[in-house]
Amino acid sequence: MTDARTPVLTVFRGDEHPPDMGPIEDVAEVRYTDAAGLSDALRGADALFMYEFLSTALPSAWHAADRLQWLHIAAAGVDPVMFPELRASDVVLTNSRGVFDDSIAEYVLGQILAFAKDMPRSLRLQDERTWKHRETERIAGTSALVVGTGPIGRAIARMLRAAGLRVSGAGRRARDDDPDFGTVHATDRLTDHLPDADYVVAIAPLTDQTKGMFDARAFAAMKPSARFVNVGRGELVVTADLVAALRAGDIAGAALDVFDTEPLPADHPLWTMDQVLISPHMSGDVVGWRNELVAVFAENFRRWRAGEPLRNVVDKQLGYVPSGS
Amino acid sequence: MTDARTPVLTVFRGDEHPPDMGPIEDVAEVRYTDAAGLSDALRGADALFMYEFLSTALPSAWHAADRLQWLHIAAAGVDPVMFPELRASDVVLTNSRGVFDDSIAEYVLGQILAFAKDMPRSLRLQDERTWKHRETERIAGTSALVVGTGPIGRAIARMLRAAGLRVSGAGRRARDDDPDFGTVHATDRLTDHLPDADYVVAIAPLTDQTKGMFDARAFAAMKPSARFVNVGRGELVVTADLVAALRAGDIAGAALDVFDTEPLPADHPLWTMDQVLISPHMSGDVVGWRNELVAVFAENFRRWRAGEPLRNVVDKQLGYVPSGS
Repeated sequence: MTDARTPVLTVFRGDEHPPDMGPIEDVAEVRYTDAAGLSDALRGADALFMYEFLSTALPSAWHAADRLQWLHIAAAGVDPVMFPELRASDVVLTNSRGVFDDSIAEYVLGQILAFAKDMPRSLRLQDERTWKHRETERIAGTSALVVGTGPIGRAIARMLRAAGLRVSGAGRRARDDDPDFGTVHATDRLTDHLPDADYVVAIAPLTDQTKGMFDARAFAAMKPSARFVNVGRGELVVTADLVAALRAGDIAGAALDVFDTEPLPADHPLWTMDQVLISPHMSGDVVGWRNELVAVFAENFRRWRAGEPLRNVVDKQLGYVPSGS
Repeated sequence: MTDARTPVLTVFRGDEHPPDMGPIEDVAEVRYTDAAGLSDALRGADALFMYEFLSTALPSAWHAADRLQWLHIAAAGVDPVMFPELRASDVVLTNSRGVFDDSIAEYVLGQILAFAKDMPRSLRLQDERTWKHRETERIAGTSALVVGTGPIGRAIARMLRAAGLRVSGAGRRARDDDPDFGTVHATDRLTDHLPDADYVVAIAPLTDQTKGMFDARAFAAMKPSARFVNVGRGELVVTADLVAALRAGDIAGAALDVFDTEPLPADHPLWTMDQVLISPHMSGDVVGWRNELVAVFAENFRRWRAGEPLRNVVDKQLGYVPSGS
């Protein structure tokens, strides 16, 4: 994008309008649209800012993307746009790598402490005005296996290590010298290492390889005392297998921020399981997150207009931004 | 205690019998008693192990302590035995300094994360099967003021610092070079420093000087967004003032593990306040804590029999073990 024409930017948004767009509106023709207007708004657009980052509406509107050069998604996970036509196209895809790392790391530590200190039970006893002393658990010295070695997984590893946990990772390639994890196990040998973990944290990108990786076999390999934390994507998990594993006592608990169907349906059995902590896909969304998402986009927009290399370019075959880029 | 007579040890216990006492029973006459039998069991006893560490029954039985040399309490706080006759006596008092430090530090971090990540609301929404996204808070970069610079306060400071908080302390003596706190403010200037803190953590020993230090004036000095965490003693707080401050919005929340009356009475207004987290005096009580309490006593018992200096000797005028000892 170096020609002199005013660029056309389509912004796909839902109920929330992105903040801080004024400087971009000053230099581009900005078309805001919802899902219904997406194909009309894509026609003739040079760039698409997918602020409605979990929508799956793009594939059916893609036929209208007749001059699109660049697609930026306001998320770390790009799985909602990993459809074949985009993968095969020349459209450059960038994501919001970095925005959520430390917030999600804090969230994961909070969920681990909630389990160890029996906080949900304290709250439920409080609602009954009941004083009941229990013994709790230390987190120092327990072990966490972080499945996913991207920037969010790394931030989680650093945070848990700082809090005294023993941390290892699981990623594509086994290694013993990772700066954040120390040891990284190969994901294809995951079940060999699940029995060692007190906490298993899922933060892998959702790809054809990772979809459903947490299934009955994986849960059966975990300790009966293990807790499973999912801050990645619901589809990493075979949800029926997770429910069955919790019911059978194959694992002791689960903290789930993401689900294969969101919002989680009101009649889903997970809602009422005592040992499950449910939150509504918010682990990374701290006050100011929307401004930060737009700031990441705006910096890439500036680079795009100036003809500079974009940040956070996704490898469309892998389905994520490769390490080091 | 170096003479050849078999020593007489009285163990004051409640519902729970101390574990791991066999090796001590092998070398001493051990008299287990509850509050009702305490004065009989004290008569002729050389040492008293106060395993029932929150009881206030000792003063009325004290007249029978006719040859007591040593009193060990299975707690960090010695306020239940700080009565004038003990203070004036030659009886050496030791405590269980060190047992609770890191457990309580984890607990405090957990409560801070519970506030920042809005966990109580997530759990209550879960109980209603309601999916409701909210924005949460970072803990990194927020500030914590830890009031109390004993070993538990130090462990809290180290833990919160590792998790990214900016930490300062409040203790008897102001200084800028503390290894754990960096800056320590003088407690008698506490209200000058309360306005800077996002989290105020109470872990001071309960003494004549600290009783009621968190009163209406203190709460008024805090930020309206501040959260107050008490893992010390309930009597550090003027509870009616805390309730009023929470109702008035002078502070945003409180996580309370200790109360001026324990158990907290069922009709107490704190139970039903949304912004209050109540737990039943358990912040330091991790699995194995009772064994660790007896191990600390057993090591001092060995020293006492051998005529070696005891560990954790309380300064009975200060009301705690002075730093460095």
